[in-house]
Amino acid sequence: MQEAVTACVLIIGNEILSGRTQDVNLNHIATTLGAWGVQTRHARVIPDIRNVIVDTINETRREYDYVFTTGGIGPTHDDITAECVAEAFDVNLIEHPDIADRIRRRPAPDDVMASRLLMARVPQGAGLIDNPTGGPQGFVMDNVYVMAGIPMVMQGMLSTLEGKLRSGPIVRSRSIRAYLGESQIAGVLGDIQVAHQDLDIGSYPFFREDRYGTTLVIRGTDPADIESAAGAVMNAVRDAGEEPEDLGEES
Amino acid sequence: MQEAVTACVLIIGNEILSGRTQDVNLNHIATTLGAWGVQTRHARVIPDIRNVIVDTINETRREYDYVFTTGGIGPTHDDITAECVAEAFDVNLIEHPDIADRIRRRPAPDDVMASRLLMARVPQGAGLIDNPTGGPQGFVMDNVYVMAGIPMVMQGMLSTLEGKLRSGPIVRSRSIRAYLGESQIAGVLGDIQVAHQDLDIGSYPFFREDRYGTTLVIRGTDPADIESAAGAVMNAVRDAGEEPEDLGEES
Repeated sequence: MQEAVTACVLIIGNEILSGRTQDVNLNHIATTLGAWGVQTRHARVIPDIRNVIVDTINETRREYDYVFTTGGIGPTHDDITAECVAEAFDVNLIEHPDIADRIRRRPAPDDVMASRLLMARVPQGAGLIDNPTGGPQGFVMDNVYVMAGIPMVMQGMLSTLEGKLRSGPIVRSRSIRAYLGESQIAGVLGDIQVAHQDLDIGSYPFFREDRYGTTLVIRGTDPADIESAAGAVMNAVRDAGEEPEDLGEES
Repeated sequence: MQEAVTACVLIIGNEILSGRTQDVNLNHIATTLGAWGVQTRHARVIPDIRNVIVDTINETRREYDYVFTTGGIGPTHDDITAECVAEAFDVNLIEHPDIADRIRRRPAPDDVMASRLLMARVPQGAGLIDNPTGGPQGFVMDNVYVMAGIPMVMQGMLSTLEGKLRSGPIVRSRSIRAYLGESQIAGVLGDIQVAHQDLDIGSYPFFREDRYGTTLVIRGTDPADIESAAGAVMNAVRDAGEEPEDLGEES
């Protein structure tokens, strides 16, 4: 069986931990990577504190195939991700000529340009991640991909990585909606999980159109195995007296 | 100076890491705790895997004053948070009589009741977190608070903790909107940060009504210090040729 390729996402920024900003980057990255055969296994939200960022990068880059970071690559004093990555890899921080070129294309007074050029700093040896929105590029150092925090910019950067990452088996999902309490189906659902060890079967309760129910989600890499488990789940819902609603591959 | 009280949030669930579900619990917990004088310093999103949950609980409960978890306390096979907390604390998992009483109030067939009663399992010695939505309670083991994953239920549980947590200085914020590029103000903003070491000054770019700008957010525990930095930031915006918009305490 093809080996899984794993990722960890690091959301860097005080504004997420203070509650000022609702993160939406993790969800986009997880969905996108999933479709490319890269499984997000872990995510951390960390503050703009140097030693925390350095330690977290060093801890996670050794444990996962890929690390994706968002945030902290702008021109202000609280943008310290690039210098932290350089410290994590124990290399110098240099001005990347290609980023500097792009920044210099838009004229500005000297002091403004000096601030903007801070965004050209990357760890020595880093490659670039293109930025389709036209701003400064992100960068990649070994298996650590450093992207902007602004969702639109991050999404643009991530899109340029399509086809460039190592790929493992793609996790597919099959969802079945049942207007049942979770407890009405918990026992048989556990049995189905035991019978399909390579799948993940999840149960996610909801309240919808004045009725309680649960969405049963089967995830795995083998379509035939998923199909077989889906059949068993639908039968279990029928046995409990409700007609299952097959949501197909809706995740 | 009063010492900070810190928290780590653990979002437990494959559905967040697969991208199926957009987490909104971290944001609510961080905002709520912040108003109570508890600072969220770290968050992790982890899968429904026993050793990952156990290790993460043990690592974080020693590093932070409080750990708050969401997810994995329902009645299905993938709900393993309670048994993981018991393992982390090396105690038995028991059926809590108060939770079982509440569950038994709603009649059900034997097999459904047996599944429901799985939600009464807590680590030996745990206290309860009330559940105003009427379902089974959450629990607290030492400094680890275990809550539901469904946002409405989690929010109800969290609300019952008001006034029951140790409290540190409250971090206040002051926001100023400027229709300037970040680089136009980055230099002086760095100087203001240096002059106010106890504050965090953040710059968050936005695109709004067809114009680019940045929101400057000053955070700290000393209102006079915040006021002074806010004055300096507003002067800096004016010096750069724009009129600052004072958003007050809007976070």
